[in-house]
Amino acid sequence: MSKHLQRDLEDLHRGILALASAVEEAVNGAIRALQQRDVHLAQQVVVGDDAIDQQDNRIEEECLKILALHQPVAIDLRRIAAILKINTDLERMGDLATDIAERAQRLAELPPIPVPAALQRMSDLTTAMVRKSLEAFVGPDPHQAREVCRLDDEVDQANDEIIQELIETMQRSAQSTEAALSLFSATRHLERIADHATNIAEDVIYLVEGEIVRHRPEALSGDMSG
Amino acid sequence: MSKHLQRDLEDLHRGILALASAVEEAVNGAIRALQQRDVHLAQQVVVGDDAIDQQDNRIEEECLKILALHQPVAIDLRRIAAILKINTDLERMGDLATDIAERAQRLAELPPIPVPAALQRMSDLTTAMVRKSLEAFVGPDPHQAREVCRLDDEVDQANDEIIQELIETMQRSAQSTEAALSLFSATRHLERIADHATNIAEDVIYLVEGEIVRHRPEALSGDMSG
Repeated sequence: MSKHLQRDLEDLHRGILALASAVEEAVNGAIRALQQRDVHLAQQVVVGDDAIDQQDNRIEEECLKILALHQPVAIDLRRIAAILKINTDLERMGDLATDIAERAQRLAELPPIPVPAALQRMSDLTTAMVRKSLEAFVGPDPHQAREVCRLDDEVDQANDEIIQELIETMQRSAQSTEAALSLFSATRHLERIADHATNIAEDVIYLVEGEIVRHRPEALSGDMSG
Repeated sequence: MSKHLQRDLEDLHRGILALASAVEEAVNGAIRALQQRDVHLAQQVVVGDDAIDQQDNRIEEECLKILALHQPVAIDLRRIAAILKINTDLERMGDLATDIAERAQRLAELPPIPVPAALQRMSDLTTAMVRKSLEAFVGPDPHQAREVCRLDDEVDQANDEIIQELIETMQRSAQSTEAALSLFSATRHLERIADHATNIAEDVIYLVEGEIVRHRPEALSGDMSG
């Protein structure tokens, strides 16, 4: 690999790590806004998505520039194709954090209902998955990538607990239906953020080991609630 | 553009059009399975996702091969980067069709509840968006791409109607909560398929006009139900 290409790749890595941090912060903020009925914080997350989108655009342009300039082949080409995909995953995660923040705004207008305890755990697991999936890519570290896939099982478990609790809330009181449904949506968005982290981890495993795991979810994670 | 590159690009176009047809068929099948409580059809959709995943892998490998072999620049490079993204969108749509089919399987085990009438309309609109977004890309036809973005508004409207009807169903009878929630999930998956089609359309507009619309959803479509 030329020195120039190596330097450009390192810049790209720094760029997607920064993007991942911004996404992690957005997810944390959205969940906190949900739990604390904090519409101001929710609004901050919604507004902050612009910066995430700009970072995403910049990284995509950077990738295309590197492809045109260095015309990399073999593993370097695969790494840049992977960055293009990871970049899209991160941008979509940012959109999902915004979706959660919008649910928080709606929830704040409705009569309060109990927020399932497992939501905090699910949120912590999900942001850990985002961070670890990126570390796995930059490493590259397929061991860490497999840990991300394993964590997705725990997310699914937390998700199942939350859904069960929300069903019970809805069955207890018809007035709580809409609020419970908003929480249900927010939980779904969170689950999907974890799925994107899993996509990244699976791409890392493919990149390093050449083994396609992404289309064999049964080998890696269970799903009871799709 | 060299003759070889042009031929390879045409092959790629044929490949993603075939993949889009397979996805469209999967979505149609999943929704029919949902409406008719047809677990056999649902199972076919779940099993059929393997073929979609294989097509997706093949197209990705083809893109990387073309990048390494022809080292395209400028618009050709952008087209191939776009195909990589569209390919991922299509694969995710296939996964979402599978998610809907799994909801259909679960629904068939629960006491029947009325399926909202708008679901068929939403499904027809969504599969039309998938088809049109790919036609817009192959054209390339930014006019058609904008039509896709417009249709997404209609999908959102149908989605709102369905959610309202499901809330009423849940409020009428606590026994119907779980079935209504499964239908709610399936509707969300369908909405997300429409979002992927919108992503493709926005990428087409960017590709042709250089205008980034994908991060300005307010200019293109409303969202009442995120």
